Amino acid sequence: IGMYGAVIFLVCTLYASALDNGQMLTPPMGWLAWERFRCDIDCVNDPKNCISEKLFMDMADRLSEDGWRELGYVYVNIDDCWSSMDRDKDGRLQADPKRFPSGIKKLAQYMHDRGLKLGIYGDMGTHTCGGYPGTPLEKIELDAQTFADWGVDMFKYDGCYSNATEQEQGYPLMSKALNATGRPIGYSCSWPAYQGGLPPKVNYTQLGEICNLWRNYGDIQDSWDSILSIVDWFFENQDVLIPAAGPGKWNDPDMLIIGDFGLSMEQSRSQMALWAVMAAPLFMSNDLRTISSGARAVLQNEMIISISQDPLGIQGRRILKEKSGVQIFWRPLSENASALLFFSRRTDMPYRYKTSLSKLNYTTGSYKVTDVYTFKTTVLKDSTEFVVSLNPSGVVMWYVSAPAKLNSRLVFRASKQNTKKSQGFVKLPLLQFYCCLLILHILHFYPSLFNTPF
Amino acid sequence: IGMYGAVIFLVCTLYASALDNGQMLTPPMGWLAWERFRCDIDCVNDPKNCISEKLFMDMADRLSEDGWRELGYVYVNIDDCWSSMDRDKDGRLQADPKRFPSGIKKLAQYMHDRGLKLGIYGDMGTHTCGGYPGTPLEKIELDAQTFADWGVDMFKYDGCYSNATEQEQGYPLMSKALNATGRPIGYSCSWPAYQGGLPPKVNYTQLGEICNLWRNYGDIQDSWDSILSIVDWFFENQDVLIPAAGPGKWNDPDMLIIGDFGLSMEQSRSQMALWAVMAAPLFMSNDLRTISSGARAVLQNEMIISISQDPLGIQGRRILKEKSGVQIFWRPLSENASALLFFSRRTDMPYRYKTSLSKLNYTTGSYKVTDVYTFKTTVLKDSTEFVVSLNPSGVVMWYVSAPAKLNSRLVFRASKQNTKKSQGFVKLPLLQFYCCLLILHILHFYPSLFNTPF
Repeated sequence: IGMYGAVIFLVCTLYASALDNGQMLTPPMGWLAWERFRCDIDCVNDPKNCISEKLFMDMADRLSEDGWRELGYVYVNIDDCWSSMDRDKDGRLQADPKRFPSGIKKLAQYMHDRGLKLGIYGDMGTHTCGGYPGTPLEKIELDAQTFADWGVDMFKYDGCYSNATEQEQGYPLMSKALNATGRPIGYSCSWPAYQGGLPPKVNYTQLGEICNLWRNYGDIQDSWDSILSIVDWFFENQDVLIPAAGPGKWNDPDMLIIGDFGLSMEQSRSQMALWAVMAAPLFMSNDLRTISSGARAVLQNEMIISISQDPLGIQGRRILKEKSGVQIFWRPLSENASALLFFSRRTDMPYRYKTSLSKLNYTTGSYKVTDVYTFKTTVLKDSTEFVVSLNPSGVVMWYVSAPAKLNSRLVFRASKQNTKKSQGFVKLPLLQFYCCLLILHILHFYPSLFNTPF
Repeated sequence: IGMYGAVIFLVCTLYASALDNGQMLTPPMGWLAWERFRCDIDCVNDPKNCISEKLFMDMADRLSEDGWRELGYVYVNIDDCWSSMDRDKDGRLQADPKRFPSGIKKLAQYMHDRGLKLGIYGDMGTHTCGGYPGTPLEKIELDAQTFADWGVDMFKYDGCYSNATEQEQGYPLMSKALNATGRPIGYSCSWPAYQGGLPPKVNYTQLGEICNLWRNYGDIQDSWDSILSIVDWFFENQDVLIPAAGPGKWNDPDMLIIGDFGLSMEQSRSQMALWAVMAAPLFMSNDLRTISSGARAVLQNEMIISISQDPLGIQGRRILKEKSGVQIFWRPLSENASALLFFSRRTDMPYRYKTSLSKLNYTTGSYKVTDVYTFKTTVLKDSTEFVVSLNPSGVVMWYVSAPAKLNSRLVFRASKQNTKKSQGFVKLPLLQFYCCLLILHILHFYPSLFNTPF
């Protein structure tokens, strides 16, 4: 009995390899202030764009009124420069009183009233990167409790002004502290980005146990170059990164800059597709009040969102890197489907790339193929040669459904999944605990059930 | 008498310091195939985009029907890969018979019927860069005559497969040969680009005498990076390049890639503004059949075109390079006006740059300032502090009219100037010749007029 019990307990524990807060079983989606609004605190001269409760309420209004929320974009995340320079008399963090006169609790309520969630930011060093009060080791429990009291739904823990030793203590400690509040709070760790993003310095098994997402690499900037350097790094290190990701635990290549100033339409489509293939969190950092209709259409593409939000949560892989500058990526999806992404790194003119599904390792059969940007559908045999025309810095992305499922219609999962988050396969510590209790109970009272030799 | 005659002859000669063909007294404007369509000769699989007479007729239709011609975009220029691999029985170049079944002469007529001009391409080496027949030294006169016979209006002379010695002979020889045909043919020399673009290898005085425009630097590609490297090179070497340019003789930083795949709207506005400040030729290389309305609006901006086409033809200068990433450019214009260009090299967020006209070397007075993209006009005293908000990779461009001319309305010169090209200050060799003849005649018959001591 003892041995069986131990085995079953072990199974229950393994089942919970991601952070056990039931959060973010698909890559989180929403909006994050940093890339677009940075540390603009000049509300006198720049009232529309400064970091203030007004900015986050504006974005919440847009998310809830312009069709974003229904597609899954539910997080409204504060980044650096939100707090007062001083903690309050009880040592708690407090928002800057001029820029957040109603306080964070009211702001969280504003989000919840609209079916949205609020994220907030802290730093595990003495100060945040912007020089605001940090959350060093001795403040972790207090600040976690403060965030929970405010009704915050997500927390990004940055790493400026802390060393490797402190980080090794602080990031796990914050995970426990957030869990201990009893409030489900998605936990974003900047830890690996401060340690070069690679083993042995970075332990991805541990990260998956304590964080829901983590920044592996440098900050994104508003330029195509920045995206290329991120994409190159993530796919050059894919053998390390792909196994680290899964439901509840995601590599984070940083924000979507679609709708800002640095990307052409072609490049915007490319970022969206690449982020979806990477199973990356989709946090836009842009001005939703003034976004162009073209950028909006890319960000609101339902087929790409459905690929991003596939319930298997398997991060995609680069499968081919041609001398011509064409690169091909593949992400396995549920129902034996897959996403296939052709990407041109050329800077000259549209390139006609010829291949077949069998050359891309697809097994024998006929596949239904839908272009996620043009919505055109064709049926392709694995052996059929086809040509994709790839624009410079552009992509062609296909949703490929499995041969056996040719007649099943494409399912758009995005919105459904986001409302399903707390049902189904949730890995709540409580559920796990009850499951083990039940099994131990059975073992105890009906040992004969298990003692029968096989 | 002899001395006076020599002086006057000298004056007549100095008057003609630019190539004496009366062409391109303002930077030429039009369309050039290369960047967008390259050497695509696959008319079987890609009939719409292959280098063929159809492509150039399509572009001519667009130029003449979509408002381009009236703004000055009149050249339709063929680049490499137009010719047959073999010269004809008389040793003349001939167009590829499959892709140009009607021949170049008919194509030139097609342009002229629409108020447009045709440009063609050759190479001073054994082969063109794309491997087609070159125009080496011994073929120069023959080919120049062929182009003139066809009714070609502009010729770009590339430099692949030739060495420095051959170039030193060939580029001036072609200039003479083109002039000798009697047909005005604008002459674009790639020579300096093959010699590093800088003295002592490059002699800009000579270039101004033999070419109407010249490529100083590498080919543009469809990326913002490419634009930045071109802009950096041109302004780092501005002290060499600015004096080289003037009416009839232009530095050529290469084509406009606005409307292609690599630039955001912000970056498109920046290329247009920077090229206008550089007094650069404005050759678009894009697909005018499918261009977006946003890109079209940038390329058809009348105020910027009027700055580009200012009759003084003075190339602009970078006057400030701030640590913040803000760079400021200035181009003097006729009627004591000027163009002022603020450019952000940042990749983060809009930047509020504070300055005053006096800090930018403007003299005391009030200036009328018009933003060429928003059309907003204000009056600024030289001492007034103002803030320009600069988007990442974006520009703000002002047309600044002189203090004395505050009440004069902004004159849009673009379309007028282009029709004036062959009037006014044209420097036709014939005119110069007659002028000298007349003066020598007077000197000969009325010597006493000049012998009076002053």
